[in-house]
Amino acid sequence: MNSNLINSLIIRAQTKIVMLIMDGLGGLPRAPGGKTELETANTPNLDALAERSSLGLTIPVAPGITPGSGPGHLAIFGYDPLQNEIGRGAMEALGVDFELGPDDLAARGNFCTIDTDGMITDRRAGRIGTNVNQELTRLLLTIKMDGAEVFIEPIKEHRFVFILRAPGLHDSLSETDPQKTGVPPQPVCALDPQSEKAAILVNLFINSAQKTLANRHPANMILLRGFAKLPILPTVQEKYGLKAAAIAINGMYRGVARLVGMQVLDVNGQTLNDEFMTLEKYWDDYDFFYLHVKKTDTFGELGDFDGKVKAIEEVDGLLPHLTALKPDVIIVGGDHSSPAVLKSHSWHPVPVLIYSPFVCPDGLAEFGERACSRGSLGTIPAIHIMPIALANALRITKYGA
Amino acid sequence: MNSNLINSLIIRAQTKIVMLIMDGLGGLPRAPGGKTELETANTPNLDALAERSSLGLTIPVAPGITPGSGPGHLAIFGYDPLQNEIGRGAMEALGVDFELGPDDLAARGNFCTIDTDGMITDRRAGRIGTNVNQELTRLLLTIKMDGAEVFIEPIKEHRFVFILRAPGLHDSLSETDPQKTGVPPQPVCALDPQSEKAAILVNLFINSAQKTLANRHPANMILLRGFAKLPILPTVQEKYGLKAAAIAINGMYRGVARLVGMQVLDVNGQTLNDEFMTLEKYWDDYDFFYLHVKKTDTFGELGDFDGKVKAIEEVDGLLPHLTALKPDVIIVGGDHSSPAVLKSHSWHPVPVLIYSPFVCPDGLAEFGERACSRGSLGTIPAIHIMPIALANALRITKYGA
Repeated sequence: MNSNLINSLIIRAQTKIVMLIMDGLGGLPRAPGGKTELETANTPNLDALAERSSLGLTIPVAPGITPGSGPGHLAIFGYDPLQNEIGRGAMEALGVDFELGPDDLAARGNFCTIDTDGMITDRRAGRIGTNVNQELTRLLLTIKMDGAEVFIEPIKEHRFVFILRAPGLHDSLSETDPQKTGVPPQPVCALDPQSEKAAILVNLFINSAQKTLANRHPANMILLRGFAKLPILPTVQEKYGLKAAAIAINGMYRGVARLVGMQVLDVNGQTLNDEFMTLEKYWDDYDFFYLHVKKTDTFGELGDFDGKVKAIEEVDGLLPHLTALKPDVIIVGGDHSSPAVLKSHSWHPVPVLIYSPFVCPDGLAEFGERACSRGSLGTIPAIHIMPIALANALRITKYGA
Repeated sequence: MNSNLINSLIIRAQTKIVMLIMDGLGGLPRAPGGKTELETANTPNLDALAERSSLGLTIPVAPGITPGSGPGHLAIFGYDPLQNEIGRGAMEALGVDFELGPDDLAARGNFCTIDTDGMITDRRAGRIGTNVNQELTRLLLTIKMDGAEVFIEPIKEHRFVFILRAPGLHDSLSETDPQKTGVPPQPVCALDPQSEKAAILVNLFINSAQKTLANRHPANMILLRGFAKLPILPTVQEKYGLKAAAIAINGMYRGVARLVGMQVLDVNGQTLNDEFMTLEKYWDDYDFFYLHVKKTDTFGELGDFDGKVKAIEEVDGLLPHLTALKPDVIIVGGDHSSPAVLKSHSWHPVPVLIYSPFVCPDGLAEFGERACSRGSLGTIPAIHIMPIALANALRITKYGA
């Protein structure tokens, strides 16, 4: 309902908004009494921006909930992550930059080993090399399906993404991976009548795959799980009236941005500097930019506190390229926390700042967890960030007389 | 649900609550790095009260939403402004202090000019003088309607409020104002079957009005929009067990207070001092007082920073009259923000303080946006203020065993 409220009040404006997302931004002190990664980082530019901003902490999904990348991003884009689930298979497909369409059903795949009785002996096929994976993937693509197309995208070692394309597929399907050895792979079962067509087609493919791989021990079978189609979401254009662009290197984030209707820009290179240059290049063409920083999360998940600190400092060093463009509104935040001490995503609220000429600055000249916890935005659901940013961009009109 | 919860736990008490609302209280610095209107104002009495209070910021409707006066007031009175909409016509009627009843359908009216073909040439009839408006209004009141009464209240220049009184009227009606010239006024259409009676009666009136005004060029026709009845709300007596009184000069606020069942007191005069004297006069007769300060919003909307500062200082100067009465609970807040730099209502959270002998004082000896952002109430929905005030007035009993 709140979402419809915003939508009904959207007005046109010439203002520009930049949302800079440091993946897994939130952290924890390395030792008791110490500073977090963000607090440790030397960030003169972020601190100066913070002084002129409203600060706060965002809760991506719900208190105590550790979000995956999908829910974390949907929330910061203003989409309720509990109402708009992106299944595992769909996320994997996005992760390899596969452009999932409305007829596509995706699943996470493993090559595995079965014995002569058909019992699983190794769920990961001895972690075959990626080159073997690629060879077997090409082989599987020779399987012809009546009335359906199949795409298979190799990932690392024994992992791949499976995509079935046909009209009328639904994704309420059981998984084939029994999650243990000594038992056979399970057939896919439709969990609702609408999904029966998909179940039949997937089982047909698996049978063909078993025959095709028969002599390819240890990778002589496949397991599929996390069947999912992409949810159909209103675009940010429809929802907010924004012509929006996404700048991200990694496929998963490009995919989530595409899912909400952002134009995913080509980045000429793989570095953060290349991303900021892309922002400059396309500055005149859009009124909303999402710029994604991956390394903060990568180092957090690796448990590399210093690496994460350096990744944040790299962002800080490039920030003047962004501020020089004079966006009307700047959001700096994260999709979730990834404290190095936990080596994983976490449930901690994520630091956020919103700058515009129309915020009442908190005057807290530091961008960090503790400073943000004292900010005027409070500790709020992440889905509130977009409405506040749109208000500051003078893109929401008055409610009621 | 929360509303029913509070209602089910209300107990009787002899305590008194005063809610002092400075309209459009929240502001912004005039220049970067500066202070807001409230922070600039010299407010020794408010600051001393703040030191003994819990401070916070209120969100009237939702994050990023700029409220009109109706939603802003409903929220601070504890009524969900999204569930209880007051339409434009009803707000206009309240604004001229017209006591809308349950059979009344109100609309905002304009005198306009049409040419000999019936096409609108000026939607505002050349902004006729208010005296002409008053003369024409009297003329329109001579129109007789079968089974319905009509009231017309002139406002300024070409504007008036139209009220149709008859049983069984509903307000799902299209507007007659096409919002452009060169086209004829539209007939009113019922947007649901229940509203057909109202549509027929309004169209009859408009036809008669056209004949009546035929020789009154440039004001030879009328346009009506924002058809609305008042919503029916539980009274504050029913909801909170409060015998409540409202002290306000302007009709709109008197009207919203009446809508929630407050007794609107006669103020002997037009000044803020007169309002505070009214509070003293009726002190023994009620256990809740809403006192409305208009000037803060007026100066905010005019973009007069210094005027708003002075309006706040005037309130501060009169505050000892209020505190001398020794209310058990004092709320000082606003219905929305109106920063002078924006010259309009805005979405910014609004400073609030709650004083009672039973708050845990934040010890922040300043009433201002930044002080309030550090307060223990946090940045919270405005509808939470009444329950907190009632609790401090020892008017809510324990939930559960």
